[in-house]
Amino acid sequence: MEIRGEVIIGQRAFKARGGDVYAIAAASGERLEPAFGGATNDDVEQACGLAEQAFDAYRQLPDEQRASFLDAIAAQIVDLGTALTERAHLETGLPLARLDGERMRTVGQLKLFASIVRDGRWHGAVIDSAQPQRTPLPRPDLRLRRIGLGPVAVFGASNFPLAFSVAGGDTASALAAGCPVVVKAHPSHLGTSELVARAIAKAALDTGMPEGVFSMVLGDGVAIGEALVRHRAIQAVGFTGSRQGGLALQRIAQSRREPVPVYAEMSSVNPVVVLPAALGARGESIAREYVDSLTLGAGQFCTKPGLVFALEGPALDAFCATAAEALSAKAATTMLSPNIHAAYCRGVERLSARDGVTKLAASKPASGANEAVAVLLRTDAQRFLADEALEDEVFGPSSLVVACRDFDELQLVLCRLAGQLTATVQLDDDDHALARRLLPTLERKAGRVLFNGFPTGVEVSYAMVHGGPFPSTSDSRTTSVGAAAIDRYLRPVCYQAVPDPLLPEALQSDNPRGIWRLVDGQLTREQSA
Amino acid sequence: MEIRGEVIIGQRAFKARGGDVYAIAAASGERLEPAFGGATNDDVEQACGLAEQAFDAYRQLPDEQRASFLDAIAAQIVDLGTALTERAHLETGLPLARLDGERMRTVGQLKLFASIVRDGRWHGAVIDSAQPQRTPLPRPDLRLRRIGLGPVAVFGASNFPLAFSVAGGDTASALAAGCPVVVKAHPSHLGTSELVARAIAKAALDTGMPEGVFSMVLGDGVAIGEALVRHRAIQAVGFTGSRQGGLALQRIAQSRREPVPVYAEMSSVNPVVVLPAALGARGESIAREYVDSLTLGAGQFCTKPGLVFALEGPALDAFCATAAEALSAKAATTMLSPNIHAAYCRGVERLSARDGVTKLAASKPASGANEAVAVLLRTDAQRFLADEALEDEVFGPSSLVVACRDFDELQLVLCRLAGQLTATVQLDDDDHALARRLLPTLERKAGRVLFNGFPTGVEVSYAMVHGGPFPSTSDSRTTSVGAAAIDRYLRPVCYQAVPDPLLPEALQSDNPRGIWRLVDGQLTREQSA
Repeated sequence: MEIRGEVIIGQRAFKARGGDVYAIAAASGERLEPAFGGATNDDVEQACGLAEQAFDAYRQLPDEQRASFLDAIAAQIVDLGTALTERAHLETGLPLARLDGERMRTVGQLKLFASIVRDGRWHGAVIDSAQPQRTPLPRPDLRLRRIGLGPVAVFGASNFPLAFSVAGGDTASALAAGCPVVVKAHPSHLGTSELVARAIAKAALDTGMPEGVFSMVLGDGVAIGEALVRHRAIQAVGFTGSRQGGLALQRIAQSRREPVPVYAEMSSVNPVVVLPAALGARGESIAREYVDSLTLGAGQFCTKPGLVFALEGPALDAFCATAAEALSAKAATTMLSPNIHAAYCRGVERLSARDGVTKLAASKPASGANEAVAVLLRTDAQRFLADEALEDEVFGPSSLVVACRDFDELQLVLCRLAGQLTATVQLDDDDHALARRLLPTLERKAGRVLFNGFPTGVEVSYAMVHGGPFPSTSDSRTTSVGAAAIDRYLRPVCYQAVPDPLLPEALQSDNPRGIWRLVDGQLTREQSA
Repeated sequence: MEIRGEVIIGQRAFKARGGDVYAIAAASGERLEPAFGGATNDDVEQACGLAEQAFDAYRQLPDEQRASFLDAIAAQIVDLGTALTERAHLETGLPLARLDGERMRTVGQLKLFASIVRDGRWHGAVIDSAQPQRTPLPRPDLRLRRIGLGPVAVFGASNFPLAFSVAGGDTASALAAGCPVVVKAHPSHLGTSELVARAIAKAALDTGMPEGVFSMVLGDGVAIGEALVRHRAIQAVGFTGSRQGGLALQRIAQSRREPVPVYAEMSSVNPVVVLPAALGARGESIAREYVDSLTLGAGQFCTKPGLVFALEGPALDAFCATAAEALSAKAATTMLSPNIHAAYCRGVERLSARDGVTKLAASKPASGANEAVAVLLRTDAQRFLADEALEDEVFGPSSLVVACRDFDELQLVLCRLAGQLTATVQLDDDDHALARRLLPTLERKAGRVLFNGFPTGVEVSYAMVHGGPFPSTSDSRTTSVGAAAIDRYLRPVCYQAVPDPLLPEALQSDNPRGIWRLVDGQLTREQSA
């Protein structure tokens, strides 16, 4: 498939007339051909109008057809072959092996949602039988199922050009929920985005989906994204990016005549607590794994461990020395874009300049235009408590170790932290009592609590939560990764005394799909009375 | 139990010093004794601080203890006897029989949530087993459960002094979810609120709940409610009332440093469609039931049928004539408060004065200070489409019949409607084809679609949805009535590689509670590997 610099509006691909936009080679900062035509407001109107028109037809398709569409997207993405990962490598600087893995994950995600659609539990079917003899008033027949919210706007993320982008988790879960999707491509991987968008359009055509089930617009600056979120047809927004960007979209969505939910994944520093027994017994191996995790993908993960908390003393000093040594041996790594690189440099400078912050180590110096030097910093809990700036996310390979005088101080610092995607505990058996005291705090702070691992690496499965309290996301009640992400794009509808032939299949008494339903308070796959 | 004009802050009841506030007798407009002490900002701080302190202990109680607390509240409310309903009658003007029914419903709601807590499905437990041999990377053990959001602020509604008030649905579902509750009592039934608040405090004491699990503040004006929603400890807000009130709380909650969700049930006109065969065959009986529904409780229901759509012609004229006759025979009825009565009179005046709106009938004239005269109006679809004001909710016993030229016009009008709590269809067998065409529109517009009934009367059960798209509520993804209301106050947390003894009971491998869980994608009550 050729990259032509086009937007995809339903089944039409064309060079839009909103001004030329170029992708940039991450490693060199040079412009990549071809020029992309930025979308106009008319293009956004077209995409949203088609999505609105497609919604009723799409959401009412049999589960199997929607599942086949998701499977077909997965197959089309596989068919793109190395052209996809090579372009993504050029645009983002991410290693090919990582991009191969990310493609597998993207494909796996689409297939997971296909299986979720087939399974049918997503309908959330509930049936309360009529009780015509009840006194003082009879009870009517009541049945509940969930339907899609409506067309969804998805904003591709810079740091996952495949898994959190055009055909990423938000798109897969919204399509699974029966919602058409309009993607705003991320400017830092426009070619990758076009390839994937074409794959989706082809899958939609091949499986007979209504036109408008998917479109992709692109543009420089914020105007096109803003127009998209303001559009009356859009009923929800999925976003992964900066706090500033997420909050701006949230404000726009709230200022609409009809406000709509925004699921923005924004910023997280992902605290890691190393408990005393673990620190004493295996501080050095933890330190090396920590450095691997914080430098993975040039530290450009939402789940990068940005803070480490441990009790001060010789064991922590040894931990820091090992981490410093490990970090010094790491090479500088190409970041996703010149903008992100510049923001990282500013962030490190700002953080290093705060009172009481010591620089422990840096990785090898940069040799390319856009390479990040990883940085390890240290401070103490008193400073940390006194200076909110120390808690700000620096997107890239930097991390801060915070030495606490005692366990009470450590617990206090954790209590004061803002919301996080993850919270990690390194512990040995002798640390269990302390871990038990920490857990209630950690589960309130984070969407995922993990033990004896590192937070980078987000499994796509049923039990995953990639979300968390503000400001890590704009809505702690949901996840952007894993099966539960489908819940974001659904709302419940109750049907009262609706005759069986008029009911949706999921709610008909004889349960033709054989799905799990709650009938008079009991889970069952049987038919209802 | 005596009414003393007190706020309830944890286990302390006292007359607050924020200025005297009086309850008003609905029928006479006279002040009722005693004076209530309005809460100060300090009282709000106290209540929220206690709620925050109570949260971790309360949410970690075994399910059975929390269920017993809910049952104990129900029993205490029953024990209040006729003192409760008599005071509520005085304050709201609602008939005693209705208030007896509302108390039964409130008690039933608390017991339903007790049974939901015992059932254990509310945990939403999901387990994905570790796959240590998986390549290229092993999969860690992942487990998900839901925990409470944190302390919840509940605003009592004017029109349901029991079922949507101090111990109403929001309080019951939040307490069930493990969230402490701080209620802001509605000024139109302060005495009723105090009695119920004392009942809850007594139940909390008797069942050994942590202090701060429940508090109730009160006050004139908006300052106390605003302070409550702004308080950092408050993590969600439940509200039933006007659109203006709901939107104001939403703005406050969004402007916080950490925004929190607001579940505001605001305004709905509850369209009723009478399809041709039903209109022809039984238009007159539908008309009489319609008038009964719109005048029930002086029209002071969120689900009052405020709009009727049908095809013009002799059958509709006969329907209108019967409805007019039935309405003319109805007595005027006491409204909840002088403010609500005044707003109703203004609303009817405004609506009646619009171009093309004809008054078909009115009920008997008022004989008391605060009585509403029910009103039936008529217009046509062209006028309705041209004049958005015709769609505004008038809270009270008024309703508007809209004559449509043909089915396409009827469908167009429905497509243009704003979001609703309910949408009703009256149909006979010969109307099924038309109903099938309407259903996709109706389910997008409303949280509940009901056939051959009227929307007043909201069953408390598993399948109920009392919610709907904006502006009927601020969040279409949830319900304020029925079992699913517990979902509002929960968020998912994932536990990765957490040793079994440190896991919450709901996620331990041997499933000690025997609850339903999703294990490796399969629903089961067995233990996991």
